[in-house]
Amino acid sequence: MNKLIFLTLFIFLGCRETPKTKVETSTMGIVIHGGAGTILKKNMTLEKEQEYRAVLTKAIMVGYNILKSGGTSQEAVEKTIHVMEDSPLFNAGKGAVLNSNASIELDASFMDGESLDAGAISGVRTIKNPISAAIKVMEASPHVMLSGLGAETFANENGLEIVTPEYFFTERRINSLKRVQEAAALKETTMLTEEIKFLHLQRYGTVGCAALDLSGNLAAGTSTGGMTNKKWNRIGDAPIIGAGTYANNATCAISATGWGEFFIRSVVAHDISALMEYKGFSIQEAAHEVIHNKVAKLGGDGGVVGIDFNGNIMMEMNTPGMYRAQIDASGKLQVKIYKDE
Amino acid sequence: MNKLIFLTLFIFLGCRETPKTKVETSTMGIVIHGGAGTILKKNMTLEKEQEYRAVLTKAIMVGYNILKSGGTSQEAVEKTIHVMEDSPLFNAGKGAVLNSNASIELDASFMDGESLDAGAISGVRTIKNPISAAIKVMEASPHVMLSGLGAETFANENGLEIVTPEYFFTERRINSLKRVQEAAALKETTMLTEEIKFLHLQRYGTVGCAALDLSGNLAAGTSTGGMTNKKWNRIGDAPIIGAGTYANNATCAISATGWGEFFIRSVVAHDISALMEYKGFSIQEAAHEVIHNKVAKLGGDGGVVGIDFNGNIMMEMNTPGMYRAQIDASGKLQVKIYKDE
Repeated sequence: MNKLIFLTLFIFLGCRETPKTKVETSTMGIVIHGGAGTILKKNMTLEKEQEYRAVLTKAIMVGYNILKSGGTSQEAVEKTIHVMEDSPLFNAGKGAVLNSNASIELDASFMDGESLDAGAISGVRTIKNPISAAIKVMEASPHVMLSGLGAETFANENGLEIVTPEYFFTERRINSLKRVQEAAALKETTMLTEEIKFLHLQRYGTVGCAALDLSGNLAAGTSTGGMTNKKWNRIGDAPIIGAGTYANNATCAISATGWGEFFIRSVVAHDISALMEYKGFSIQEAAHEVIHNKVAKLGGDGGVVGIDFNGNIMMEMNTPGMYRAQIDASGKLQVKIYKDE
Repeated sequence: MNKLIFLTLFIFLGCRETPKTKVETSTMGIVIHGGAGTILKKNMTLEKEQEYRAVLTKAIMVGYNILKSGGTSQEAVEKTIHVMEDSPLFNAGKGAVLNSNASIELDASFMDGESLDAGAISGVRTIKNPISAAIKVMEASPHVMLSGLGAETFANENGLEIVTPEYFFTERRINSLKRVQEAAALKETTMLTEEIKFLHLQRYGTVGCAALDLSGNLAAGTSTGGMTNKKWNRIGDAPIIGAGTYANNATCAISATGWGEFFIRSVVAHDISALMEYKGFSIQEAAHEVIHNKVAKLGGDGGVVGIDFNGNIMMEMNTPGMYRAQIDASGKLQVKIYKDE
């Protein structure tokens, strides 16, 4: 009888929220993505695959080494994203896609899990590393989100590296825009299946990183060039705190990549945190619920990566592939592209 | 013994999530705000107070009559917000505050609780009713959020009413900007206490509405001119789905008003919904937790209004006042300004 009362109490307490006090850990970890989408082995050359894996490895090793030597998760996230922003392979920074005016508009956001402080920029055209601008907004302005020319003025005043628009114009993106615009001029019924697939692929390529440092602090950041041929100064989920990026030492750090509209409507990054905080879900369970049962039900696709306050790493998607990599506390590196590998 | 097993099971099940199926109701209700802040009786004339109460009453009656005659919560929210946008009293539409360049930048967002579809605009200068532009983005574009000139082009192409910038320049806002800029030029230590209070007051004035219609559909919208003297194309919480606005038929519809940076970092509107969905909180308990235990702990202030799928109405703030009104299913109207009334 006493056993049953104990059991009752045990189950009852087990259902309550997890404690929110900060847990000092001796663990650490880092996870990154370079975009999710219709990434299929049959469309990829071995050479291209190796290129992606090499940049993903280089990027995550930069962050891992910072964490290992006692650096902050903020620095690890920033420097890791720089590597991907500086590569023409990803749709962020150097490799950003072109909008309908053949111009670029970059978005980025960052959140610190300890202070819950955050910074974001949207629609900038001259900032070499948007993730650093997002962090600077957090650190050096009273605001969270700046946009357009105002954000560029702020970045300039605060010593961020400014480049001419030509820096971003890669041949690959100019060709992409041309193909997308040509395809858009056709009626959908006359479009080749391959062309539709290509268009779908062009939607993605955002980069992001989430990290836990040895002090138990979580951080997450996301950076993107948005959608090829986008119009009307569209803003996606990447610069939206709660949608594309969220970090909270009580739960997890998350960066998302996918069809931004669905990720905004599902408040993806915060919802994963809320499922952990309020329902005691693991980071893996929470991400699965949000990506497969919420975003997918609305018709959206994409992926998320994240790490929780205990160092558990998650990489979840409902697309055929997501460029991604992780290193856990033991130092084990995994680099993956396709869903099933 | 069997009783205890039953009790165990009962408590266990009681901790599980509330069912998310749509509940058809024969109830309805509407709630609005016209901004929260340091609104004190001693600083207010009876005449001014009556002016505010009259516009709040006029606005909410428009929405209530739509709901009562079987109209949608979307229409009720839009038309109610129009009344406040068209009034010079509130910091939205006509009465929008001026930024540091003596120009305006309007933000708005809308979310539909049935489809979880949403629309938002930020940084527009020529759209008479920003809430309608947000709804149009939802209905007539594949996007959720448009900004700046692009959003204006879209609004123009879609037949929204466009006005010249002069439409928004009220004497009151020109004086406000002058006072804020004069004050900002002084060192804070030399600023009069009253001036600091005035500055604080200028931060607010966003308008918003949440409604439940007779079909059981929830909707919420928010519209603002942002902060007086704002720089760098700052974006606050009003156009951010999840922060300033959120609606979900499974839980509630929420519109927020306050110090936008803290509301973004706390993902206020979605967090209220998450506490209801995942922890079974009432809308009142959820709003109390978020405003007093989350936003306030970060140092932020402001308020929220909302209505849940059963028609329960909530108006919560951690400021001395919030312009607000509600009408529940019984038709009972309440119009309030100060916290304790």
